[in-house]
Amino acid sequence: MYAAQLPALHQPIEWRECRDLQPEKGEILVKVSHAALNHRDLYIQEGLYAGITLPCTLGSDGVGVVVNESGAYQQGERVLICPSVAWGSSEKAQGKQFRVLGMPDPGTMATHIVRPEAEVFPCPKHLTDEEAAALPLAGLTAYRALFTQGRLTRDDRVLITGIGGGVATMGLLLATAVGAEVWVTSGSQEKIDKAIALGGKGGASYKTDDWGKTLKKASGGFDVLLDGAGGPGYNQLMHVANPGGRIISYGGTAGSIPKLSPQKLFWKQLHLIGSTMGSPRDFAALLALVNKHEIRPLVDRVFPVSEINAAFDYFRSGQQQGKVVVSIG
Amino acid sequence: MYAAQLPALHQPIEWRECRDLQPEKGEILVKVSHAALNHRDLYIQEGLYAGITLPCTLGSDGVGVVVNESGAYQQGERVLICPSVAWGSSEKAQGKQFRVLGMPDPGTMATHIVRPEAEVFPCPKHLTDEEAAALPLAGLTAYRALFTQGRLTRDDRVLITGIGGGVATMGLLLATAVGAEVWVTSGSQEKIDKAIALGGKGGASYKTDDWGKTLKKASGGFDVLLDGAGGPGYNQLMHVANPGGRIISYGGTAGSIPKLSPQKLFWKQLHLIGSTMGSPRDFAALLALVNKHEIRPLVDRVFPVSEINAAFDYFRSGQQQGKVVVSIG
Repeated sequence: MYAAQLPALHQPIEWRECRDLQPEKGEILVKVSHAALNHRDLYIQEGLYAGITLPCTLGSDGVGVVVNESGAYQQGERVLICPSVAWGSSEKAQGKQFRVLGMPDPGTMATHIVRPEAEVFPCPKHLTDEEAAALPLAGLTAYRALFTQGRLTRDDRVLITGIGGGVATMGLLLATAVGAEVWVTSGSQEKIDKAIALGGKGGASYKTDDWGKTLKKASGGFDVLLDGAGGPGYNQLMHVANPGGRIISYGGTAGSIPKLSPQKLFWKQLHLIGSTMGSPRDFAALLALVNKHEIRPLVDRVFPVSEINAAFDYFRSGQQQGKVVVSIG
Repeated sequence: MYAAQLPALHQPIEWRECRDLQPEKGEILVKVSHAALNHRDLYIQEGLYAGITLPCTLGSDGVGVVVNESGAYQQGERVLICPSVAWGSSEKAQGKQFRVLGMPDPGTMATHIVRPEAEVFPCPKHLTDEEAAALPLAGLTAYRALFTQGRLTRDDRVLITGIGGGVATMGLLLATAVGAEVWVTSGSQEKIDKAIALGGKGGASYKTDDWGKTLKKASGGFDVLLDGAGGPGYNQLMHVANPGGRIISYGGTAGSIPKLSPQKLFWKQLHLIGSTMGSPRDFAALLALVNKHEIRPLVDRVFPVSEINAAFDYFRSGQQQGKVVVSIG
């Protein structure tokens, strides 16, 4: 088998021959067709996490076909890999053994991968392989944030910040699919326009000072807010939230939130909720939703695995809207 | 009738004769037996709110007997007044018409009060009048925070900050009644000892630098945290919260929360929840819980209404643990 391995920090990925994987009882050997990139892959390459073990096979997102017959799957059946490893026994939060697939566990950017039966799922039939590879990590994170944590219903008005990112774009697709009205923010008018073309109702640039005021007036305020930034802009989110609103944070790229007002928190009866990835149960619920509404993840561009370093460079540039996919086998 | 009225800001309360109240259809005239003090009454006297109308009859907490026969109540029946006025149609948050009883609506520190039938409830039979008067505002706030918002169960370990205050003490009584393990913080060792005598498991002084570390080690971490302070100590609460923990804020006496970490929020899957008072439905649920477990609110001291200004002075001094009650009729 071959795998896209990071040999050392700050080095290009190498497509290397590796020892063949052997599934044990209860494990599935999957021949990977497509994988997709996530910020996590970049952050590992850039050495931004503690405890990185090298060399490692990157990749959290993958789709492929089953190689070995198992109790649950036929040989040749198309499956999606759950990017959440060893979530634990509680649906409230991940346990201490939890990790995201790909470093230290060998990831999806390889011709083959072995996963426990419980972390492999039938792939939605309406999706191409490219679309399927784009779903797992971003879809799972968006699903848990909006539905498991945010209890989103069709009657909620939704704001998604930083549209264009994988989780934000999946959030837009999932929320509009159930009939919720979705608004967005971005630093780029092009990304806002694209979000509206995808079913969004409207948007504003977070580069303007009064985006909160503008959006609140235009929309009437938001019941569910999905944010991956934090930082000073978070206080604007508390302003545009309706009473009883839920603001769900899945990231903090803009750093810590300064001067959060407890008065605003209690008087508006807000729920400020943190959410990371999701459990296999969340993943199953995501797939049920994707099947029911025939949701198609947004693929920005597909690179052959021979150009994997070009794929990483493109992803790092931040031009994409939707996922960057790698075609493997 | 007579009422304890605030004639002007920063002035003593005056016990004055007023025009008799006449209930309209659907309203109940209650002859008040006991009322209780809340910080809100002090804050009005000190002019700390916007839009104070004077003179006004203070008081949010009251118990008494029904004077007029109505569809729902017999004459002479003992009733508790719901301190929440015109909550609105949503259980998620109060509506725009919501107000706390007492200024601008005539409050409970009077011989008589008129309230809509839907905001009057049968008084739990196991309570004395003094205990009953101590229940409404603090009990309703603690109930909504812990149960409606915090979804408290007997399996949760609870931390209550600033024990000694009315809401904090009621929170301790409600949470221990359902079988939850409760820990506390206070600036006073005496208040911590009293909380332990009331059923608390342990506590720490928030005046020590490492109270969070100490408490986390001693307890194992907390699932539900009840806080009326905010301020810099809030970050310690996020530290001592278990993954998936709920921190419910009902006040912000220590001011805004500096540098809140979105990373800690999302990685621990925390829920930071704001909560104010409660709806009539919350009040009914509080009374059901109080009846079921025969919970008795903690009364610190009872003053006759002729000494109402002494009662305010004593309350302002902060020595009390439990409620300060005024005996009226």
